[in-house]
Amino acid sequence: MTHPPARLPRSAVIREVGLRDGLQSIATILPTAQKIEWIRAAYQAGQREIEVGSFVPARLLPQLADTAELVAFAKTLPNLFTSVLVPNLRGAENAIAAKADLMIVPLSASHAHSLANLRKTPDDVVAEVAKIRAARDASGARILIEGGVGTAFGCTLQGHVDKSEVLRLMQALLDAGADRVSIADTVGYADPGMVRDLFEDAVKIAGDRFWCGHFHDTRGLGLANVYAALEAGVNRFDACLAGIGGCPHAPGASGNVSTEDLAYMLGSMGIETGIDIDRLLALRTRVAEWLAGETLHGSLWQAGLPKTFGLPAQALSA
Amino acid sequence: MTHPPARLPRSAVIREVGLRDGLQSIATILPTAQKIEWIRAAYQAGQREIEVGSFVPARLLPQLADTAELVAFAKTLPNLFTSVLVPNLRGAENAIAAKADLMIVPLSASHAHSLANLRKTPDDVVAEVAKIRAARDASGARILIEGGVGTAFGCTLQGHVDKSEVLRLMQALLDAGADRVSIADTVGYADPGMVRDLFEDAVKIAGDRFWCGHFHDTRGLGLANVYAALEAGVNRFDACLAGIGGCPHAPGASGNVSTEDLAYMLGSMGIETGIDIDRLLALRTRVAEWLAGETLHGSLWQAGLPKTFGLPAQALSA
Repeated sequence: MTHPPARLPRSAVIREVGLRDGLQSIATILPTAQKIEWIRAAYQAGQREIEVGSFVPARLLPQLADTAELVAFAKTLPNLFTSVLVPNLRGAENAIAAKADLMIVPLSASHAHSLANLRKTPDDVVAEVAKIRAARDASGARILIEGGVGTAFGCTLQGHVDKSEVLRLMQALLDAGADRVSIADTVGYADPGMVRDLFEDAVKIAGDRFWCGHFHDTRGLGLANVYAALEAGVNRFDACLAGIGGCPHAPGASGNVSTEDLAYMLGSMGIETGIDIDRLLALRTRVAEWLAGETLHGSLWQAGLPKTFGLPAQALSA
Repeated sequence: MTHPPARLPRSAVIREVGLRDGLQSIATILPTAQKIEWIRAAYQAGQREIEVGSFVPARLLPQLADTAELVAFAKTLPNLFTSVLVPNLRGAENAIAAKADLMIVPLSASHAHSLANLRKTPDDVVAEVAKIRAARDASGARILIEGGVGTAFGCTLQGHVDKSEVLRLMQALLDAGADRVSIADTVGYADPGMVRDLFEDAVKIAGDRFWCGHFHDTRGLGLANVYAALEAGVNRFDACLAGIGGCPHAPGASGNVSTEDLAYMLGSMGIETGIDIDRLLALRTRVAEWLAGETLHGSLWQAGLPKTFGLPAQALSA
C-alpha cells in the first residue's frame, strides 16, 4: 500500500449508514434476517462502525422497527462500534436500554426544515440533547451522544443556511453535553469549497469531538466533498452501500456517497480504512438482489478495481 | 455570484468533448444536422471551446466522418475555439486545411497501450508531433498543437505508469514543438491525491502551456479529480454532456466527467465558466432524445440546481 500525501489523514473510518439512512428512504422493507446478514458481512469486510437503525416510532418508519434486535446482534461482533439515530429523549432511553455505543441526535440548522421535519426549532433540539445527556449520565451507561448538524449547506425549503448559524448550533450541542458533533449535507447542496471552509472552522471549534462528515451525492459532488473534508483534517465519513437512500425531493437522485466508491477513493490514496473492497463488492451484489427494483448508485461495482490498486509503494514511486 | 476561495482559480473553461470522445465510444451515429444543433446550442449555453471531431479515416470511426463540415460550421460562431483530434501528420494536414483553432495529438504514456491502440511507441508520437509542427509552421496557419498525454495514471493493459515517464513525455512534446500539453486519465485510474501530485509538477514544467485536464469518471472520482487539479492551478477541463463515452474495458461504466455536473461544481464554488446551466440542461434533454438507448450519466439533471445556486455573495456571507 502506498502512503497518503502528508496533508491528508493516514487513516479514515467509513461508518455504514445504509441500514438507517439508506433503508429509511426506500420502499423495500428488508427482513431482520437480511439486515443481520448485511451487518455480519460488512463486519467481515472490515467495517467497524455501523449505524444499524433508528429509535423512532414503528408507525413512522416501519422499515426500522427492528432496531433493538439489530443492536443486540451487532454487540455480539467484537470491536464493532454500533450507532443508532434517536430523535428525542424517548428514543435515547431506548438506545441506552439497547446498549448501543453511540446515539446520533439529528438537528437541522435550517429552521424551516427543522420545523417541517422535527416540529422543533434547532434550539429545542439542543435543549433535548441536554435532557439526553442528563438521562445518559444518570443511567451510568457509556453510550456516546453525537449531535448531528444537518442541512448545514442549505435546504430545499429555506434555501440558504448561514455558516455562522451552523457553527453556533454545533457549539450549543457541545455545551449541552454532546460528546461528539458532526455535519451533514442533507440535501446535496455542498461543494468542495464550502466543505473545506466550514469543516476547517468546525474542527477548530470541536477538535477531536468533531466526529463525522455526512454527504449526500445528490448532485454528484459527494466524493469531491469528502476529499475537501479530508483536507480539513476530518477522517470519519458516513456512507451507504450502493449509495442507497435517494432524496425525497428529487425522485431517482442519489443518496449518500456509496461505501464502496468511498472505500476505493480512500484506499487508492493510501488512506487506511481496514476495508476489504472485494468483500464489500460481494456484499453489494447480495444487497442489490434483496433490493431488486430499487435504484442503486455507485460506479466501482461496474468498472472494478484498477489493476494498480493496492500496489506496494516501491512500485508506484519507482 | 459568490467568489471562489483564494486558493482556487477565479475562472475555468470547460471544453466540450462529447462530440468526439463521447460519440466515438457509443454505437449511435449522430447525423451531422444534429451535431450542428448540439454545437449551436452548446455555444448558446455559453460554451466557447468545443472539440468537434477527429480527423481519422472514416472506415475506423464512421461516427466522426463529418469532422471537416463541423469545423466549418463551428468557425461561423464568433469566438468559438474549435478543437479536433488528429492521430498523425495526415490528420494534422486535414485539420490545418479545415482551419480548426487547435489540434490535439494523443500520446499514450503507457507503452503497452500506445502499441495496442496507436501501433506506435510514445516516442514515435513525439517524433510525429515534430513533423506536425514543421507542417503547421510551413503552412503559415495559426492552428495550435496540443500534445495530450493519456493513460497518465495507469492503464488496463500495462497497469502502472511511472509519473516520471509522464513528465518526460510531456517535456518531450513541448520540445518537439507542441504549443500546449494536457494530461488525461484515460481509464479512470486517478484519485485526487495522484492528480494534485502530478498536476503540480506538470504545471511547474509547462507553465501556461499546460492546457487541460481530461478525467474519466469510470470509478466515480471524476469531479474529485477536477477539484484536485483546480488546487494545482489548472483551470481548463474536458467534459462530455451527459457523461457519454463509457469505457471500452468496462461495459456500462461512465465516460468523461459530465459537462453539466462539472459546470455546476465550478459555478457553485463561484468559479466563472460563462455557462448557463439551465440552457445546458435543456440541451442535455435533446441530446438524450437523440441518443435514446445509450447509457447516459450525470446527477444534476435529475436533482436540479440547488435553490441557493448563484445567490449573490452578500446573501451567502451574511
